[in-house]
Amino acid sequence: MANTTENQTFADLINKLKFNNDGLIPVIAQSHDSREILMMAWMNHDAIIETLQTGRVCYYSRSRQKLWRKGESSGQIQTLKNFRIDCDADTILLLVEQVGVACHTGRRSCFFEEVSKDGRIKIVADVLKNPDDLYGK
Amino acid sequence: MANTTENQTFADLINKLKFNNDGLIPVIAQSHDSREILMMAWMNHDAIIETLQTGRVCYYSRSRQKLWRKGESSGQIQTLKNFRIDCDADTILLLVEQVGVACHTGRRSCFFEEVSKDGRIKIVADVLKNPDDLYGK
Repeated sequence: MANTTENQTFADLINKLKFNNDGLIPVIAQSHDSREILMMAWMNHDAIIETLQTGRVCYYSRSRQKLWRKGESSGQIQTLKNFRIDCDADTILLLVEQVGVACHTGRRSCFFEEVSKDGRIKIVADVLKNPDDLYGK
Repeated sequence: MANTTENQTFADLINKLKFNNDGLIPVIAQSHDSREILMMAWMNHDAIIETLQTGRVCYYSRSRQKLWRKGESSGQIQTLKNFRIDCDADTILLLVEQVGVACHTGRRSCFFEEVSKDGRIKIVADVLKNPDDLYGK
């Protein structure tokens, strides 16, 4: 009976959320303590439910077309602290505890390029971990 | 000559960014001081360049299919403090100074619904401004 209720609650949540034509919804990951934005990725139905149930963040990889348990290759996992949705129910915000670095370049955040008023780009964050060490190349 | 150089710099930026099939790119707006996430919206080429050049945040409204100078109806404008792009050049992060509230419901942030581990949703932020006052209904 508890399972039936829980399944219905998840079904209501999924039904409320607005997925795009590929069945995906954008997800912002924010560090729960420093409040820096770490990355933006995507989830499908299964990734949302797995993330809520396990407390370990799981996205959907558009390039690999499968569930992507963040850190499964690199060890740089994300633990869920808070799961929010926006007023249009078409974007998710996660507050997470990030192990190490979120970006595949070895930087803490994926948002390491700053654009000035005249359109020029400069890098504003250091590489903290060697990507070769993260991915065992 | 300065204009030609500047136009080329903007062209290089637009060329680097990855837009979706509708010519749009997702944009996260974060409060530059409190670091809270205010909203997620979209920009096209013109919105990006106008935002950089004017310092006032301009999105592209998917529902109205036109440029949306944030606050043009409600007065709740966003001033650009910092413009960043991510490692895949497919998401923009803005640090902004938000006048009043970002959300059309009158809440500071659009992310005011929290989802618990079992999928239940609760509202975790108060309405600070009456939406009828914001939109003159």
